[in-house]
Amino acid sequence: MNTNPPIPIAKHVAINLGEKLQLISDHWKPRLVAEMNDYQFKLVKIQGDFIWHDHPQTDETFIVMAGVLRIDLRDGCVHVKPGEMYVVPKGVEHKTYAENEVQMLLIEPRGTLNTGNTTDGRTAPNDVWL
Amino acid sequence: MNTNPPIPIAKHVAINLGEKLQLISDHWKPRLVAEMNDYQFKLVKIQGDFIWHDHPQTDETFIVMAGVLRIDLRDGCVHVKPGEMYVVPKGVEHKTYAENEVQMLLIEPRGTLNTGNTTDGRTAPNDVWL
Repeated sequence: MNTNPPIPIAKHVAINLGEKLQLISDHWKPRLVAEMNDYQFKLVKIQGDFIWHDHPQTDETFIVMAGVLRIDLRDGCVHVKPGEMYVVPKGVEHKTYAENEVQMLLIEPRGTLNTGNTTDGRTAPNDVWL
Repeated sequence: MNTNPPIPIAKHVAINLGEKLQLISDHWKPRLVAEMNDYQFKLVKIQGDFIWHDHPQTDETFIVMAGVLRIDLRDGCVHVKPGEMYVVPKGVEHKTYAENEVQMLLIEPRGTLNTGNTTDGRTAPNDVWL
């Protein structure tokens, strides 16, 4: 049914999320690994507690690769384990927490700050490619 | 440092991609599992060869959960393994191929057809939630 594949060209290379994560040695500093239209895929390692914030203009997607992420919401929380994802709706206050290190993929529009509607010492620079 | 988490509420539940995949027993029929703004997350199992097509209006993201996906492009191909992702740019002709079954997560704007700019017997209905 299938013929031979087209000749492989080196420029077409998949992004290996695990290998990319190995390049990250700090916490709370998202690194860009791919873009889809005006959305960005960011890898980040976190540990400990973050600050409450929301993203007034956009939903935010978390896909966990390792560890157990707890996303605190004002009316409860959700635990996100490896192989699980969660979308925090636009405008919903949330705070991430990782008892032990969590490695995860974030998906959000270009320009989204990690601290959302607030900026403080935890605000990480955007558009840092890995 | 961290206080007790807010009281868990059942409505906040992560999406377990592996468990969702177990509910799929057919091939080439994407199922919706989450939305982020006007983008959709779709799980699909595929095996065999697809048809050449492109998406004139949007990039398309593939994240492989199981199996080895081959994405044929007119000037080569890319193999995407579990834990890897690839973004096919807007307007770029491509064809997916799976020698053995591939389980994957697609991310694309709401309304994107699996056959892109073409429709035929392989065109799957959209907005089928899992």
